[in-house]
Amino acid sequence: MKNADPKPVSARIFDDAERQALYDIIEARRDVRNEFLPDDIEPDALMRILRAAHNAPSVGFMQPWNFIVIDDPAQKQKVHAAFADANAEAEQMFSKDRQETYRSLKLEGIKKSPLNIIVTCDRARGGKVVWGRTHDAAMDVYSTVCAVQNLWLAARAEGIGIGWVSIFEKDRVKAIFNIPAHVELVAYLCVGYVEELFDKPELSARGWRHRIDINDLIMKNGWTDTANNA
Amino acid sequence: MKNADPKPVSARIFDDAERQALYDIIEARRDVRNEFLPDDIEPDALMRILRAAHNAPSVGFMQPWNFIVIDDPAQKQKVHAAFADANAEAEQMFSKDRQETYRSLKLEGIKKSPLNIIVTCDRARGGKVVWGRTHDAAMDVYSTVCAVQNLWLAARAEGIGIGWVSIFEKDRVKAIFNIPAHVELVAYLCVGYVEELFDKPELSARGWRHRIDINDLIMKNGWTDTANNA
Repeated sequence: MKNADPKPVSARIFDDAERQALYDIIEARRDVRNEFLPDDIEPDALMRILRAAHNAPSVGFMQPWNFIVIDDPAQKQKVHAAFADANAEAEQMFSKDRQETYRSLKLEGIKKSPLNIIVTCDRARGGKVVWGRTHDAAMDVYSTVCAVQNLWLAARAEGIGIGWVSIFEKDRVKAIFNIPAHVELVAYLCVGYVEELFDKPELSARGWRHRIDINDLIMKNGWTDTANNA
Repeated sequence: MKNADPKPVSARIFDDAERQALYDIIEARRDVRNEFLPDDIEPDALMRILRAAHNAPSVGFMQPWNFIVIDDPAQKQKVHAAFADANAEAEQMFSKDRQETYRSLKLEGIKKSPLNIIVTCDRARGGKVVWGRTHDAAMDVYSTVCAVQNLWLAARAEGIGIGWVSIFEKDRVKAIFNIPAHVELVAYLCVGYVEELFDKPELSARGWRHRIDINDLIMKNGWTDTANNA
């Protein structure tokens, strides 16, 4: 090996206040659709949340992500049209009694939020063989999702709301931004400052689906069937 | 709708110290293979990191995750055997000059860490149609990865290291734990207290691959080719 053999060093210890800050940010994070303010994102804050994403774990240290920052109204309008077409299809998939609720809610903030960010995964970045990805090709996409979650938490700490839009045909949105075939569009995020948020997940607040008791989700040493595992 | 129309409330504002705590935890997080201490994980700490995972975003508030907590040495031994077989295959995929480095490194802490946790995604949990998942079936797996990242950050804040093992045949490991066909094994995590960690990602410290300049990863309003996008 070319490098001298590196050694681990004393790991930083986080105190109670720091730990609590993390837990509070995790609990206060929301998927935002309608609460975006029009104010521009401060460039320094944008760089901090992108840097948080870039500090995510990645298989084989592949760092497969890119960030397309979008403020062009014409581009946002095209994405909104892709959303609207898909959403009309989606509505029809629900039972009649749920269609009214589905229709009544704003499901995206593409145009209302001042910034949109696409997070992509370049599946060719690490070369033909990537350390740790030899037996699960999806690990690069998982790494990219870890980056999205880091970005989301950082944004919440900055007073910036994030809404993840997934109701569109991916190939149509990839074409809008000239994203190459070997690059996966992982997340389309609406990004804007917020002053108000729901105090629990909006779909829970609206009675669409309730929080599962965590004790019903934990198993010991093997799979066991529970009420949640039909 | 059955529920009264809920409204957003004032969003909590995080101060500089809280924000910095999050950024410090994000930067200090590592993928741990060899630094695990044998000490048992405190039950309260385990519940806190699982609760952090459970507070992740999920498409349609589907909460598709389960957590299989593993401390049975016989189960861990079976997983280790699955890893060893796959890793022997993996090694052969690298060029001769990289095989020596690959072989020299410990790639997992399955037996060394006191606890392993499998995070799964129950793809049937939300019923046939899930809000927001109508046009991208992978959104439930992405939600589960967000839960993994929350768990990982929470663990770091608790002084607990996490190592994500992905070098094995998934179906073989699913069989060890009787995980049903409709449930995806998303992450196999080694979990244990740590006192020492590498001060940067280990593969970077060892010269395997270097950190990409973040400015080379950011694009504006559309895809542009850069040095990293071959």
